[in-house]
Amino acid sequence: MIIYCRVENLITKTNPFESIFVYYIMQAEIITIGDELLIGQVVDTNSAWLGQMLNKNNIRIKRINSISDDAEEIKTMLSDCLKRSELIIITGGLGPTKDDITKKTLADYFGMGWRTDAKVMAQLEEFFKSRGRTMLEVNKLQADLPDGCTTLFNEWGTAPGMWFDVDGKVIISVPGVPYEMKNIIEHKALPLIVQKFKQPELYHKTIITINIPESMLAKKIEDIEDTIPSHIKLAYLPNVNIVRLRLTGSQVNGDIKTEINAIAAKIMERVADNIVCDEDISMAELIFRMLSERGKTLSIAESCTGGYISHLLTVLPGVSKVFVGSVVSYSNSVKHHQLGVESTLFETVGAVSEPVVRQMAKGVREKLQTDYSIAVSGIAGPGGGSPDKPVGTVVIGVSSNQNEEVKIHHLIGDRSNVISRAGNAAFEMLRQLMLKEA
Amino acid sequence: MIIYCRVENLITKTNPFESIFVYYIMQAEIITIGDELLIGQVVDTNSAWLGQMLNKNNIRIKRINSISDDAEEIKTMLSDCLKRSELIIITGGLGPTKDDITKKTLADYFGMGWRTDAKVMAQLEEFFKSRGRTMLEVNKLQADLPDGCTTLFNEWGTAPGMWFDVDGKVIISVPGVPYEMKNIIEHKALPLIVQKFKQPELYHKTIITINIPESMLAKKIEDIEDTIPSHIKLAYLPNVNIVRLRLTGSQVNGDIKTEINAIAAKIMERVADNIVCDEDISMAELIFRMLSERGKTLSIAESCTGGYISHLLTVLPGVSKVFVGSVVSYSNSVKHHQLGVESTLFETVGAVSEPVVRQMAKGVREKLQTDYSIAVSGIAGPGGGSPDKPVGTVVIGVSSNQNEEVKIHHLIGDRSNVISRAGNAAFEMLRQLMLKEA
Repeated sequence: MIIYCRVENLITKTNPFESIFVYYIMQAEIITIGDELLIGQVVDTNSAWLGQMLNKNNIRIKRINSISDDAEEIKTMLSDCLKRSELIIITGGLGPTKDDITKKTLADYFGMGWRTDAKVMAQLEEFFKSRGRTMLEVNKLQADLPDGCTTLFNEWGTAPGMWFDVDGKVIISVPGVPYEMKNIIEHKALPLIVQKFKQPELYHKTIITINIPESMLAKKIEDIEDTIPSHIKLAYLPNVNIVRLRLTGSQVNGDIKTEINAIAAKIMERVADNIVCDEDISMAELIFRMLSERGKTLSIAESCTGGYISHLLTVLPGVSKVFVGSVVSYSNSVKHHQLGVESTLFETVGAVSEPVVRQMAKGVREKLQTDYSIAVSGIAGPGGGSPDKPVGTVVIGVSSNQNEEVKIHHLIGDRSNVISRAGNAAFEMLRQLMLKEA
Repeated sequence: MIIYCRVENLITKTNPFESIFVYYIMQAEIITIGDELLIGQVVDTNSAWLGQMLNKNNIRIKRINSISDDAEEIKTMLSDCLKRSELIIITGGLGPTKDDITKKTLADYFGMGWRTDAKVMAQLEEFFKSRGRTMLEVNKLQADLPDGCTTLFNEWGTAPGMWFDVDGKVIISVPGVPYEMKNIIEHKALPLIVQKFKQPELYHKTIITINIPESMLAKKIEDIEDTIPSHIKLAYLPNVNIVRLRLTGSQVNGDIKTEINAIAAKIMERVADNIVCDEDISMAELIFRMLSERGKTLSIAESCTGGYISHLLTVLPGVSKVFVGSVVSYSNSVKHHQLGVESTLFETVGAVSEPVVRQMAKGVREKLQTDYSIAVSGIAGPGGGSPDKPVGTVVIGVSSNQNEEVKIHHLIGDRSNVISRAGNAAFEMLRQLMLKEA
């Protein structure tokens, strides 16, 4: 028999025949420092990455707080966070220049003196030597750290991360430069975090649906949703033509995995026609996987999407196994000369038309000698629309040597939104074509 | 004579010969609601956009707070924000499904009853009719709003925004779907915000530098930085091979524009060799502008960047005037057949080499008949590296019919970082080539 006891945040899992496990469900917060975030000069991608990494290690982030590079503001925020949470990760304000005040502010806050970290200094000397650069006084100062912190070495930059363990709570300070932050957190901080905060498993299951609006989806699964117990949470994440459903629960509530998977199975059966997959992967990853499994290759002819669809694929390591290349045919001349589209069509039916896209798809597939192809031509806006073909009109084609499919889509949103939607729609058409041929 | 008085947050600008201006420097905060942000399933791009828009209208954002979709958490956060700030913008949690609790929570918090907004209902009916979809009960509920709020119509979705004016403070609630949020804020909320909160002008000046590390830059302009008065702030924003310098000040401190521009001029003179421009635009925008001014065209041959450089250009409206197209030559076969690269080179020097990139640049320029071209081939990682050509080795070429330049770059960071750096490095090489020919 296993008994779960919860006293406020304290969860005790007791098994009289085995050892006793005590879980304290801790909370984490992120503080991102920098006016560039507040005035929108930089998008905060660090927090999302940190959220993912902590989640994989079963740690919940309670809040993400973005504040100004201001000593008083940093101290106030840190003090508030320490009242609520056990782990606080601070990013930003650790560079070599005068506007970088995080390190000094933390030393002040904790009333710590200074030490020079010899290992960091040696690393700095090596860093500058290997790059043939002179080390400046401000660079040397980066080896000076508050004397109560543990160093988290930065292998890709000059500002080390810091680990403060104060009254059982942990405060981590890392640079805001994304790849330096990621490297320090993943390799230096996370092993220490996991060791210090043992947490029960958090289980997320994501189901990806396509071409069904959120309200329609909710209506279709209403009765299933009503039976979901309160310790499992269902979230709807709508984005362009895709809605992701996420079920979340914690291992402290019995065999959460089996329980959540059973609910997911019911939902997937109910809306089978709109299910893309039951993993939280992008459409590009799914297409990559399907092509790999089938040993097939892909080429793309992009007009209005201008390289975006190719980019979605080529950020994936190893995609060269299935993706051969693309022609970004932004001008009609390129559509004609490189893809073999008959030039009379531009006059008669226009570049955004079924016949042109059909020829683009066939042209790129034959020219780049692939099994499958995607072709896209449309009006992403804000200009270029007409009553006949308003902004958002996008013609998408997919082809193999056996089949082809061309469809006119009417996509809503601004320019970048139309481009994103066209990408998802194209991948979905290719997925359908591959399923048909499987 | 103009006198400025500051009593805490109250700033009075007095001119005895003219009328008296009273500025109250207000603060704004953003609350983004959604577990998807906290677990990193979605990157919060909304806040950056909101930061930009408010800044353009001289409103400072003090904090960005991301929290869970939890009624108590929303109320606690709102109560804290109202103690500090005059304007609070809440995004998320307004959809038609059960996990959307923002509207109900706000009505509870302010103790408001409900009203059905006839105009929203009519708009909803039209929305569903025009899309040939049946309106469900949950959709109809979207016309029910707290009776003390003003409706902010949503032209691109079914969840209206809400404007609460409580004790002189404004709370705005909008959906989290980016294009719906943007549309409501820009066209419905901002005009009301600007009318209610008249603010002195905030002035930002951004200088973009390239190929100079942050610490070296700081050292070079150290004496200039020391003379900057305390009411002007200098921030360093390092990102890949670019460092942006931002000077910020408020109009309440005299003729801030002239003062900041004078400092900027000194900095730009000092590091003239590393200055890209003195506007906060992307390298892609700069290249677009330079090509337009010169009436020249561009084509691109992309291997490891896989469409990313083309995408950076094609998100810009109107770029078809200068950008003709690209060949994403991910395989050697495409490099050979489409760009005319001699296939023996792949054996002798490899695809990531100066001779191959030289031929790619020439090949794409001639084939797509453009004035300029960019070509990139490299190893973005994580696999594919060798002792000879480690991950991060990227060969970039630019060419015109008079000149060509090919350079081997050693870029650091992970796959997406190498791709981004390669993009900036390629644009910079093209900029230099164009300047040489100007």
